[in-house]
Amino acid sequence: MSDTVKYLLDEQHLPKTWYNINADLPEPLAPVLHPGTKQPITPDDLAVIFPRAVIEQEMSTEREIEIPGPVRDVYRQWRPSPLFRARRLEKALDTPARIYYKYEGVSPAGSHKPNTAIAQAFYNKQEGVKRITTETGAGQWGSSLALAGTFFGLEIVVYMVRVSFDHKPYRRAFMETFGAQCIASPSNTTEAGRAILAEHPDSTGSLGIAISEAVELAAQRDDTKYALGSVLNHVLLHQTVTGIEAKEQMAMADDYPDMIIGCTGGGSNFAGLAFPFLEERLRQGREIEFIAVEPSACPTLTKGAFAYDFGDTAHLTPLVKMYTLGSGFVPPGFHAGGLRYHGMAPQISHLSKLGLLNPRSYNQLECFAAGIQFAKAEGILPAPEANHAVRGAIHEAEKCRESGESKAILFNLCGHGHFDMQAYMDYTAGKLKDLTYDESEVAMALAGLPSVG
Amino acid sequence: MSDTVKYLLDEQHLPKTWYNINADLPEPLAPVLHPGTKQPITPDDLAVIFPRAVIEQEMSTEREIEIPGPVRDVYRQWRPSPLFRARRLEKALDTPARIYYKYEGVSPAGSHKPNTAIAQAFYNKQEGVKRITTETGAGQWGSSLALAGTFFGLEIVVYMVRVSFDHKPYRRAFMETFGAQCIASPSNTTEAGRAILAEHPDSTGSLGIAISEAVELAAQRDDTKYALGSVLNHVLLHQTVTGIEAKEQMAMADDYPDMIIGCTGGGSNFAGLAFPFLEERLRQGREIEFIAVEPSACPTLTKGAFAYDFGDTAHLTPLVKMYTLGSGFVPPGFHAGGLRYHGMAPQISHLSKLGLLNPRSYNQLECFAAGIQFAKAEGILPAPEANHAVRGAIHEAEKCRESGESKAILFNLCGHGHFDMQAYMDYTAGKLKDLTYDESEVAMALAGLPSVG
Repeated sequence: MSDTVKYLLDEQHLPKTWYNINADLPEPLAPVLHPGTKQPITPDDLAVIFPRAVIEQEMSTEREIEIPGPVRDVYRQWRPSPLFRARRLEKALDTPARIYYKYEGVSPAGSHKPNTAIAQAFYNKQEGVKRITTETGAGQWGSSLALAGTFFGLEIVVYMVRVSFDHKPYRRAFMETFGAQCIASPSNTTEAGRAILAEHPDSTGSLGIAISEAVELAAQRDDTKYALGSVLNHVLLHQTVTGIEAKEQMAMADDYPDMIIGCTGGGSNFAGLAFPFLEERLRQGREIEFIAVEPSACPTLTKGAFAYDFGDTAHLTPLVKMYTLGSGFVPPGFHAGGLRYHGMAPQISHLSKLGLLNPRSYNQLECFAAGIQFAKAEGILPAPEANHAVRGAIHEAEKCRESGESKAILFNLCGHGHFDMQAYMDYTAGKLKDLTYDESEVAMALAGLPSVG
Repeated sequence: MSDTVKYLLDEQHLPKTWYNINADLPEPLAPVLHPGTKQPITPDDLAVIFPRAVIEQEMSTEREIEIPGPVRDVYRQWRPSPLFRARRLEKALDTPARIYYKYEGVSPAGSHKPNTAIAQAFYNKQEGVKRITTETGAGQWGSSLALAGTFFGLEIVVYMVRVSFDHKPYRRAFMETFGAQCIASPSNTTEAGRAILAEHPDSTGSLGIAISEAVELAAQRDDTKYALGSVLNHVLLHQTVTGIEAKEQMAMADDYPDMIIGCTGGGSNFAGLAFPFLEERLRQGREIEFIAVEPSACPTLTKGAFAYDFGDTAHLTPLVKMYTLGSGFVPPGFHAGGLRYHGMAPQISHLSKLGLLNPRSYNQLECFAAGIQFAKAEGILPAPEANHAVRGAIHEAEKCRESGESKAILFNLCGHGHFDMQAYMDYTAGKLKDLTYDESEVAMALAGLPSVG
C-alpha cells in the first residue's frame, strides 16, 4: 500500500502575517460604492456595521498584515493544519499526477471558516462590540463565528438560510450548543425578511437574503456589528494563512504545484490557498494554473456578468464590482449550501476578469461521486462544498492519466462532511439529481442590476 | 485570555511499540475459559474467529510489542494526536488544577477506535481474511472498522445496536459511505438475533446481543473473522499508543499527572491512556491515581460482581473473569451508547480488584452539562461517552478549587460529538433524564452467571 503522506509544520511555523493580494494586483480593484450615492464608499460609511480595524484591512494595500497575538493563540489549537499527499487516491486513480490537499477540517468547527471568524471576533471585541450578527448557508460559517464568540465572550446571532435550517438541524444544534442564537431566514425579525415572506411565504432563503437580515439587525444597535464569512477583502486576507502554510509544506515535500484548485462560493477558501501562490506568479512569474470550481447550478464566475451589484437581496450593502448572477437571483436548493451565492469576491472576480484564474463548474452528482471516491481512498469524508474541489482535482488527475503527464495538483479540502450525512444518504439512495438554474430568472436578475456612473 | 496550549509531537515520535501491561501485573490474569468445557482456552479454540497474530497478542506477556510498519503508516495520517492544556477551562472553573487532555477526535473516524481497527484489519488482511464482522454501539467502533476496511480492502459487516441504528442514521450513513454493511441488531440474520426477537420483538438491542450476532456470522465462513472494539487484551494493547505519546507530551509540558481519568465502557480508551502511566506506578512506584468513570445507568465496575461471565448475550464467546452486571442484563438506552456494556475488560477488572484503579460513576445529565461547559471553554464538542471523562476531570478540578491544591489532571477526550447532535438537542430541550438500571434485573442476571470450576 502506498500511503498518504502528511506534511506537518510545527508551531514555530505558524504564520505571523497574512498576505494581502491588493499589494500585487496588476490593476487596482474597482472602488466599492455607497448604495445610495453611488460614490466611492468611505471608512465612516462602513463603520456602522464593521469595526475600524476590519475596515482598515478591507482598504489596505500593504502586502503583509500582522496576525494579532491573541488570534495566533487561538489558531494554534489546530494550526498549522496538515497538508497531505494523497498517495492512496493517486493509486486508486492510477494516475501519474501528484495530488496534494491542504486539510482545513481539523479546526474545531470542521472547516476553514474559523481562520477569519477568530480574527473578526478579536477585532470586534477589541473595539468594545458586544454582539455580532451574521448569515450562514450550510452552517460552517455560523458554527465558526459561534465558536469565536465563545472564545472572546461575544453574543452571536446567526441568520441561517431556511433550506439549511430545515435540512441541517444538527448544524443548528452545534451553533446553539456554543451559545449562538440561530434564526431561520427569511424571518419576521427584520424588514428585509418580512418583505421577502410577504411575497414568497415559502421562500427557502438564500445567502443574499440572510445577509440583508443580518446587516439590518447590526445597523440597529451601536453595540452590534456584522461579520461576513466570505466575499470581502479582509475575509480573503485572513484565509491566506492556509496558503502561506501550504507553501512551506510543499517545500517540505520538495515539490511545487502546477495547479491549485478550490471550490468557490463567495471565494474565501479558494483565495486562502491560491493567493500566496498567486503572489509568486505575479511577482516572480512562476507558472501555476488556478482553477476555481463552482456548482453548475450557481455558476457565478462562468455564467455571470462582471458588473456592480449588491451583496445582498434587500440592497442594504455597498455596491461591489464582481461576477454576479444578479442579487435578485435565488439559486436552487442544492446540497452545497456554502456555494449558493449570487456573487463572487471582488478580488476573485477581478483576477478572473484579468485572465489569471480559470473558473469551471461541475454538477452535484459528479461531485458527490468524487467525494465518496476520495473518502474511500483517503479516509476523510469531505463537505459537499469541498467535493467540488475534489471533483476538479480528480478530473485533472484523470487528464494526467490520459496524457501521461505527472503534474502536481494541490487542492483545498476546506471542510469535513460530518454534518452533511443527510446529503450523502440522499445521494446514496439515488434521491439527488443535478439541478439547473432558471436562465430566465438570471436574465431578469441581471436586467435589474443597478446602473452606475 | 489564557489560551489552550497544544503539545504536538512530530512523526519521529510516533511510537514503534505498544505497551503490554500483562508483563507487569502484580498477579496474572485469571485464565480465559472455553464456553463448553470450561477449561482454559487454547489458541486453536480462538482461531475460528481471530487471526493468529491477534491471538498471540491476546496471550502475550512480552512488555513491548512492535507496531507493524503498515499500521504506523496509517496511524501517521493523524498521529501523534495532540495533547492540550485546557487553560480556558481552568480559568472558567477558577481552579488551581492543571487540566490536560489527550484528544483522539482528530482521527478520521473521530475517536480513538481506529488505533485498534487499523491494527486488526492489518493482521486479518495479512492472514488472507476477506471479511470481518463486528458489533457497534454508538457507531464509533463500526465507523473505525469501516474505515480500516477501505484502507486494507476488506469487506466489513457491522451489527449496530438497534437503539443506535434508529437514533443515529448518520453514523450508519458514515459506515455505509465507506462501504461497510450495517445491520440493526437484534436481526433475523443470525440464530442469536432471531432468538432474542422471538422473545422481545421490540428489543432495543445491546452490545452483548450484537456481539453474539457478529461472532455467529464470523464462525460460519473460513474467510470471515470477527473483530472486537474493546474489552480484550489485544484491543487495550493497541490503544496504548495514546498513553505512550501522552507520556512524552507531559514531559514537553514539563509536568506529570497526579491523576488520569477516562470513561469506561469496555475499557479500551481508559486503558490506552492509563496503562503506560500505570507501568511507571507498577515498576517505579510513581504515585498516580487512576479514575475510571462509568455511567450510573450501567455501573459495571462500581456495582457489578467480579466473576466469570460471557462477553455476549447468546453465550457464544469464551468465559472471562471480569466485573459484570451479568450477560443477561440489557442496560437502559442512555445516550452514551459506547458505554452500554454489561462487562468490563478483564485487565481493567483485575486492576480494579487489586485496588490499583478507582472506579466512579456519574449520571447522564451532569455529564452533558460538563460536556457543554467544556465545549464552550475549549471549542471542542465531546462525544457523550467522553463527557463522562470530562465530568470526572471537572469534578476533580472543583475539588482542587475547594482545597486550594494544584493537581495535574490528565484525561482522555476519546472522541468528538459531531454525530451525537441529537443527544445534545434532546439534552438542551430538557428531554433527557437520568436513567437508572433495574436492580432486580441485574440481580437476576448475576444469579444466572455460569458456575465455573
